[in-house]
Amino acid sequence: MLGDTASQSILEVSLREVETPSSKLTRFGSDRPLKLDSGATLGPWQIAYETYGTLNAGKTNAVLICHALTGDQYVASTNPITGKPGWWNKMVGPGCPIDTNHYFVICANVLCGCLGTTGPANVNSTTGQPYGLTMPVVTIRDMVRAQAQLIDYLGIETLFMVAGGSMGGMQVLQWAASYPERVFAAVPIAAGARHSSQNIAFHEVGRQAIMADPDWNGGNYIAKGTRPTKGLAVARMAAHITYMSDESLHQKFGRNLQDRDNLTFGFDADFQIESYLRHQGMTFVDRFDANSYLYVTRAMDYFDLAAEFGGTLANAFKQTATRFCVMSFTSDWLFPTSESKAVVKALNAAAANVSFVEVETDRGHDAFLLDVPEMFSTIRGFVTGAAHARGIPAPGGAD
Amino acid sequence: MLGDTASQSILEVSLREVETPSSKLTRFGSDRPLKLDSGATLGPWQIAYETYGTLNAGKTNAVLICHALTGDQYVASTNPITGKPGWWNKMVGPGCPIDTNHYFVICANVLCGCLGTTGPANVNSTTGQPYGLTMPVVTIRDMVRAQAQLIDYLGIETLFMVAGGSMGGMQVLQWAASYPERVFAAVPIAAGARHSSQNIAFHEVGRQAIMADPDWNGGNYIAKGTRPTKGLAVARMAAHITYMSDESLHQKFGRNLQDRDNLTFGFDADFQIESYLRHQGMTFVDRFDANSYLYVTRAMDYFDLAAEFGGTLANAFKQTATRFCVMSFTSDWLFPTSESKAVVKALNAAAANVSFVEVETDRGHDAFLLDVPEMFSTIRGFVTGAAHARGIPAPGGAD
Repeated sequence: MLGDTASQSILEVSLREVETPSSKLTRFGSDRPLKLDSGATLGPWQIAYETYGTLNAGKTNAVLICHALTGDQYVASTNPITGKPGWWNKMVGPGCPIDTNHYFVICANVLCGCLGTTGPANVNSTTGQPYGLTMPVVTIRDMVRAQAQLIDYLGIETLFMVAGGSMGGMQVLQWAASYPERVFAAVPIAAGARHSSQNIAFHEVGRQAIMADPDWNGGNYIAKGTRPTKGLAVARMAAHITYMSDESLHQKFGRNLQDRDNLTFGFDADFQIESYLRHQGMTFVDRFDANSYLYVTRAMDYFDLAAEFGGTLANAFKQTATRFCVMSFTSDWLFPTSESKAVVKALNAAAANVSFVEVETDRGHDAFLLDVPEMFSTIRGFVTGAAHARGIPAPGGAD
Repeated sequence: MLGDTASQSILEVSLREVETPSSKLTRFGSDRPLKLDSGATLGPWQIAYETYGTLNAGKTNAVLICHALTGDQYVASTNPITGKPGWWNKMVGPGCPIDTNHYFVICANVLCGCLGTTGPANVNSTTGQPYGLTMPVVTIRDMVRAQAQLIDYLGIETLFMVAGGSMGGMQVLQWAASYPERVFAAVPIAAGARHSSQNIAFHEVGRQAIMADPDWNGGNYIAKGTRPTKGLAVARMAAHITYMSDESLHQKFGRNLQDRDNLTFGFDADFQIESYLRHQGMTFVDRFDANSYLYVTRAMDYFDLAAEFGGTLANAFKQTATRFCVMSFTSDWLFPTSESKAVVKALNAAAANVSFVEVETDRGHDAFLLDVPEMFSTIRGFVTGAAHARGIPAPGGAD
């Protein structure tokens, strides 16, 4: 059964009034509230982030990295909760395609994430209780608004680049649409300009699994001292399948049995894929808050950039001067290439400066997090070209 | 929330000692036990089935239809639990491709199904209690063994045809492999000779959702007077997504909102796809037993026909005289065409009489249950040809 392991819990961290270890934290008082798409206003609120490298004198070398659904701000440094290396430490770091010897990289925990930025597990200062479901539902645009307020606070006018995969890519597109003059270059990877019906369906299954867990307690589990670990683990298991391709599952696990020579004729994990999925579910609950999962999936479901611009996606990018590098993966069925192509089509219709790369890989959606050489070499080339165009000294200097 | 509706329950039916309304029921005493792949023996046991049409004097016109995971024996007549028409009533019936004016059609509830054939919700006559998890785990081959015992009981030596989709198609392949001399023609649709890693993964999510529901009570929910409706509904929701294609979800629902002009910024069903999935989950629990879901999904996971024959699928069909019509659907990602092609390749390697049709449709895996004209015309032609070959007067007589 799931969820019976409970080592250090992110909820415990949250209840300690979210001072995420080693993260920078900027608090905005009631005088700097965040206005949300729902009409609600959030304040006071806070945003947790990491930075890498040094901002140059002209403040022209800032790169914002946007993380995915269950990601975090530890893009290139150890996550203090899991002890794991930064989630994109082959992309961001000294000598990497996004070279922290040359660029000042910022990565913030998203709004309603659970690693320091205000979310449902945080205490609402007005009530003294965790927000729970009294937290307003937020959108991708709200996440980007929060980041923009941080960028203002850091005194940066224009970001050299905004980059991210999956939900991170949605934020990149939203940045380019909401603040075109503040984004010199944009790299949306394995993303799209809307969440599809199938994607909403998978998210809804996850949310229902969480809400079906009696330990969810109508969202008040922190106050009640319970944790909906089983529901959250099931949600993660379902989602995890969508991050891999049929082919990668076949190659990695096939029908291999788990530590046994024969079928057990029971309901234990006979197959390696079962054991792997259970492990994914069980470890996830130690690092992620169930209500955050509801809020962040909801933000993705609500994302439909064309709808913001009268139903025509090209209008989102009208007269944009941003240079785009759009990337998709052949075996990604969660955000298939067709979604990226729709973005590219709209960018072309807006006469944008856009390059598009479909990377051949069998790793599925999660390819953006993995060691895919073509992705790295493409981003390296794009970043170098964009740096030249902006007059920032680029690594190596040759290209 | 899910599962708060509970009209007439299949469990109530089960507890009334499973005398499924209007179904034929054959009981086998302890002297006719069913020997299972696990090594266990089941007996006494019973099998519930429906028949349509008339068996001819030579007993050469019998067609066995095998149903899918959550299917039933009501292939061409009203399901007494749901009140819905037969699940394949465009394929089987008077004037249909499998014409009940000419063929004697048998369809039996699978072993561990919950419509009359012995399964976990049934009372174990030895203990006087429902089997629950004391029911032995069964395989597709066990299901076919049970059917073969029924066919023996009906005095039929050779089936003119065995046909079915999805798990029904697995049974068709198993029939052809286990009893080649008893199958004149075989029609496996939207199936494969093994369950893939991705398919096992989705089933495991469903099982974990059920087992995470406290009302599952370790499988003893009947005795405890509870029903794991929420877990079962989540399992069904996850599975249902896999039965449709991305394209059909997009066409049917897209991002359309449910009875509302605007997003609600909450966790109710904003989108039609959410409402649809919740409905699928909620209605499913009224017709299906949670433990049956565990057992039947497990049987599918265990299916690997090649493994039974030393790892070479062609060996399953050595010197077969059966004529095969293998069919797949272009948009089926649960049992993609590649799985059917692997079967066809093995059949060709065994020099079998095989035709293969990949039907172009955007309806996904569930296409086999839907109104897909090319499927009907193909099956009609194949059945007529096979009838000629077997010397059964075929409908129309012209072909």
